[in-house]
Amino acid sequence: MLDKEEERSKLLEEIEDLIERKRYAQLRDLLLPLEAADIAALCQDMKEDTIPLVFRLLPKELAAEVFVELDSDQQELLIRGFSNAELKEVLDELYLDDTVDIVEEMPAGVVKRILQHSDPETRKSINEVLKYPEDSAGSIMTTEFVDLLATMTVEDALKRIRRTAQDKETINICYVIDEGRHLLGVLSIRTLLLAEEDDVIGDIMEQHYIAVQTLDDQEVVARTLSKYDFLALPVVDKENRLVGIVTVDDAMDVLQEEVTEDIEKMAAILPSDKPYLKTGILETFRSRIPWLLLLMVSATFTGQIISGFENALAAVTVLTAYIPMLMDTGGNCGSQASVSVIRGISLGEIEFSDLIQVIWKEVRVALVCGVALAVCNFAKLMLVDRLLFNNPSVTVTVAAVICLTMVCTVLCAKLVGCTLPMLAKKVGFDPAVMASPFITTIVDAISLLIYFRIATLLLNV
Amino acid sequence: MLDKEEERSKLLEEIEDLIERKRYAQLRDLLLPLEAADIAALCQDMKEDTIPLVFRLLPKELAAEVFVELDSDQQELLIRGFSNAELKEVLDELYLDDTVDIVEEMPAGVVKRILQHSDPETRKSINEVLKYPEDSAGSIMTTEFVDLLATMTVEDALKRIRRTAQDKETINICYVIDEGRHLLGVLSIRTLLLAEEDDVIGDIMEQHYIAVQTLDDQEVVARTLSKYDFLALPVVDKENRLVGIVTVDDAMDVLQEEVTEDIEKMAAILPSDKPYLKTGILETFRSRIPWLLLLMVSATFTGQIISGFENALAAVTVLTAYIPMLMDTGGNCGSQASVSVIRGISLGEIEFSDLIQVIWKEVRVALVCGVALAVCNFAKLMLVDRLLFNNPSVTVTVAAVICLTMVCTVLCAKLVGCTLPMLAKKVGFDPAVMASPFITTIVDAISLLIYFRIATLLLNV
Repeated sequence: MLDKEEERSKLLEEIEDLIERKRYAQLRDLLLPLEAADIAALCQDMKEDTIPLVFRLLPKELAAEVFVELDSDQQELLIRGFSNAELKEVLDELYLDDTVDIVEEMPAGVVKRILQHSDPETRKSINEVLKYPEDSAGSIMTTEFVDLLATMTVEDALKRIRRTAQDKETINICYVIDEGRHLLGVLSIRTLLLAEEDDVIGDIMEQHYIAVQTLDDQEVVARTLSKYDFLALPVVDKENRLVGIVTVDDAMDVLQEEVTEDIEKMAAILPSDKPYLKTGILETFRSRIPWLLLLMVSATFTGQIISGFENALAAVTVLTAYIPMLMDTGGNCGSQASVSVIRGISLGEIEFSDLIQVIWKEVRVALVCGVALAVCNFAKLMLVDRLLFNNPSVTVTVAAVICLTMVCTVLCAKLVGCTLPMLAKKVGFDPAVMASPFITTIVDAISLLIYFRIATLLLNV
Repeated sequence: MLDKEEERSKLLEEIEDLIERKRYAQLRDLLLPLEAADIAALCQDMKEDTIPLVFRLLPKELAAEVFVELDSDQQELLIRGFSNAELKEVLDELYLDDTVDIVEEMPAGVVKRILQHSDPETRKSINEVLKYPEDSAGSIMTTEFVDLLATMTVEDALKRIRRTAQDKETINICYVIDEGRHLLGVLSIRTLLLAEEDDVIGDIMEQHYIAVQTLDDQEVVARTLSKYDFLALPVVDKENRLVGIVTVDDAMDVLQEEVTEDIEKMAAILPSDKPYLKTGILETFRSRIPWLLLLMVSATFTGQIISGFENALAAVTVLTAYIPMLMDTGGNCGSQASVSVIRGISLGEIEFSDLIQVIWKEVRVALVCGVALAVCNFAKLMLVDRLLFNNPSVTVTVAAVICLTMVCTVLCAKLVGCTLPMLAKKVGFDPAVMASPFITTIVDAISLLIYFRIATLLLNV
């Protein structure tokens, strides 16, 4: 595990040194004990022209594993440098779902070359998987699974597994089908090993299986896999014919991607699937500017409210100084509520039918929070702002206006914060968008309206 | 998969109806095809007194699986209702890591009863795992793995696996040790099945393995597992003796928990590990109030800045109306940058050595965003605020002040947003805390200072 930065940069220096001195055998020995993911990470920091060299030093199985872990621009670079024979060798070692991932990222010319040098059966499977929409179960599945007939004996099954295991993504779970490829059940390798040689597969298989459909969303697939602690999920078509499986490692990647997307949406960023440092300036700009513009324009309302109360503010200028504090606290309260609810929704803990329960909870939390904040604030206004900073315009009435506004703002903020994500979900929008920035803009306007209303009532301005 | 709410409530009604009419055989047939996780989810919504009844209807293996998936209060309820024989039966079916999880959640009296009715070996293992600190690899590992001696033949190994498989959490990966229990290598069941019967384990095992130490953080363990696409990771002590394994399903749960924690921290909530609806009002209050208080008090500085420029604001009152817009946009820009960087850090894409690269990127993005926002804002000020709303106080100079402030604020916000999380990480703080609310408070003050400075210069107030 090369997590530590220093360790990695030391290793990098060593590699560069060995390349310079052409000690290739020594370099190979240095790389061999490493995991593919670590070698790929090292390649990120190497000079571009040394990567093909390092790649050719590795035994072909490890080389293929490293290849899968590389960035798509480095993969492209390597493919362009490969001879036809080399390309074929690498492609033969790859699992189908990895090949498809690579094909999806490459420019047309490279894709054509890849398809030309895949064997006809792989080519057919690649095209099969490619036709499923992005983010569907079909697009992340692999077709390299172990299928067994229900009529086989355990002995037959084990023979079949031994014969084909080399090319399968996993043998830990096997899938039982009939002659028409309809999925009948699943069978773990453990059950197989514990069974008698002449047991029939159809008798020992688990008949209550869970399967997803090719067009199901990849997030649903990943959540299902994680919920039931499975190692793989079968993917079936509309006629319940088995077409592929999704394995747990791919599901983990999907969950990570989806979480990143959610977090980005919560921060008013349009999601992108590239790592931060690999995204260009214009791309980052494009993912950030739409929400900034929209939120900037919506802040106009807040400005209008302030303009409307210009005279009141001119009469009691001290009120202006507390606008940011009230708006920020409202925004923070709202985002606490909305983020809790958004996360609860995406983990499946909260459903629309819980709306009343959620609102009731947030109302009570808001009252406790609001009163606590108001009391602290009142003390601070009287002791610090009035006495310490000697500001005579902070009267008890002004403090009362600010603290009353605080309680009302917190209550509204929590209510808006918890309700909007649930309503969004209900009408089919993405709840994650209803997070801090959006809530803040709404709560800003609400808190100002409350502030000026209470000020008008108590201060007669 | 019972994801759809309507489906579930229909099933619930059916169950309650069958219980009322005492059709227990029919109820059992209804439940049998369901997955354990689904039955547990149904139990959440059942009347408390029907859960033990449902539980006793299930075959003991499925019952134990359901038991693991239940909430801890329901588990406690069930345990209190169990006879000693029933408790022993359930405990015998549980995997060790699940038993430990349950023991950790139960009150002392229940723990004592559980330990009394576990067999002596399990009791020893439970106590073993319990002594590791919370969130460490040791605390989430299981001790029920397949260990093989390097000197065994494949035939011996398969025999051993067949004999012990029933009690092992996984047999997909086996661990090769010497007589002193030191870890020598790992071996997949696939390699075992493909090997010849008289091959020696030590010759066919993978010697380059990755292991974690008992005290490593659970997040490190989960990220390692996910990075290398493993199904399980061996856990060793300081002398490299194998003490347990962490399986991929537990790693997935850890990743989900850690993400929830990060998201909560980003929204200024102290993390809790309970689901939203299960957390009490006071508990929610306690997790939210500290940051609210802190941020409220820090907003004092913003107030002070406004007070300091009270005269300028009184002279050009129109400036007040644009404070919220400038502060919000600054806050949004800052949180976009900080959240991108925080996520990059937690995915391992960004390290401290990338600081200059990150800053350089954010500076350029900030300039493009700032200019774009300023141009749109200028147009809006002139066309909407001045012409449409007929507000003569929005002069070209005022608009220039606002738009110049916009560019400077966006630049500062992005800089603060991207730098703080990286500095926090460097000095050992949690970068996730440096997200929106915290950044907003800082950026508020900065944007006001810039606003008033530029206003003083251009408007001579």
